[in-house]
Amino acid sequence: MTTALDFHFDFVSPYGYFAAEHVAALGQGLGRPVRFRPFHMRAVMKEHLGVTQALADLPLKGGYIRRDVRRTAAFHGLPYAPAPTAGFSSVNASRVFTLLAPLDETRAQAYALSVFRSHHAWGRSPNTWAECVALAEAAGFAASDANEATHGARARAAYQQATQDAVAAGVWGTPSFVLDGELFWGFDRMDFIAQWAQRHTAA
Amino acid sequence: MTTALDFHFDFVSPYGYFAAEHVAALGQGLGRPVRFRPFHMRAVMKEHLGVTQALADLPLKGGYIRRDVRRTAAFHGLPYAPAPTAGFSSVNASRVFTLLAPLDETRAQAYALSVFRSHHAWGRSPNTWAECVALAEAAGFAASDANEATHGARARAAYQQATQDAVAAGVWGTPSFVLDGELFWGFDRMDFIAQWAQRHTAA
Repeated sequence: MTTALDFHFDFVSPYGYFAAEHVAALGQGLGRPVRFRPFHMRAVMKEHLGVTQALADLPLKGGYIRRDVRRTAAFHGLPYAPAPTAGFSSVNASRVFTLLAPLDETRAQAYALSVFRSHHAWGRSPNTWAECVALAEAAGFAASDANEATHGARARAAYQQATQDAVAAGVWGTPSFVLDGELFWGFDRMDFIAQWAQRHTAA
Repeated sequence: MTTALDFHFDFVSPYGYFAAEHVAALGQGLGRPVRFRPFHMRAVMKEHLGVTQALADLPLKGGYIRRDVRRTAAFHGLPYAPAPTAGFSSVNASRVFTLLAPLDETRAQAYALSVFRSHHAWGRSPNTWAECVALAEAAGFAASDANEATHGARARAAYQQATQDAVAAGVWGTPSFVLDGELFWGFDRMDFIAQWAQRHTAA
């Protein structure tokens, strides 16, 4: 049985966006399906790391990260023009994703990419449920697939579960990857994952 | 004029050890001399990041880091058998380095590598001034070059200055690299530095 490469991320993360743009190619190289698992980074930081401040607001580190994000985007030729981080909540976008993925993982990943691009490249902040449903429709879903009145409670529970699953897998940062139980953190570790897999997985 | 690649590190850092084993090759590839700049990571964490807990002691993150350090060492074929981190202070080793570097940077780097290997590969903790002088002698210095009674005060001041210089250069983690004013953090960014330099420096 071929197990998936799990891709854990929060839509607020610029490195998550870069990773999302590359993860399909990584999965293909590995010969593994990719499973997108949005989780709630702020909840993990608060409940498990004891951190309440956003990375970008830390002295020294915040300035470096902002510079590195722009440098990384330029290096990979990815458009990068984010809306203000403070004005974006990934909660509804993630909840809607949990409804879409069981219906069609491929289209759900296209939806996820459009959320990432929307915030990090097109300067928007799809905060409301309705905005997220519009992105789902653009990815080929029916509006009823993600109707809030019908499915909202299930989506909230699934998102909480995804966050708990991420923590149970050892995830503490975004983006993270889990391959055969091995955890990797960071966009800049994606090349390493391919090399690691070559050494550690049977042909 | 060819400016140096500055390599900022704390001897306690395992990723600093891995970086130290590779930085000479990076400098050669760049055609730049490498300048070793040990700094006091704990002081930077406490005074500038508001962090008092060691990375390895954080929940979730600590376990990942320990695993990643072993995985990284194995991947690069570097011996890794550290003495307990809690029993090692890099302060005297760093102070002694500040006395050696102005005399002979090449030998001082050999001394620095022996400090790194001593702690991270050979399970020792060169905490005392005398132990550090012994490593300096093994690297070709005279014991008098790093005599504590004669030079101790100067070494303490130079180490404080190196830490202030690191912060002034934007450094907040170990290892970090500064090339032409551009800051890079992390052992796993060393390949990126070479690629970045190719794009950004004139021939």
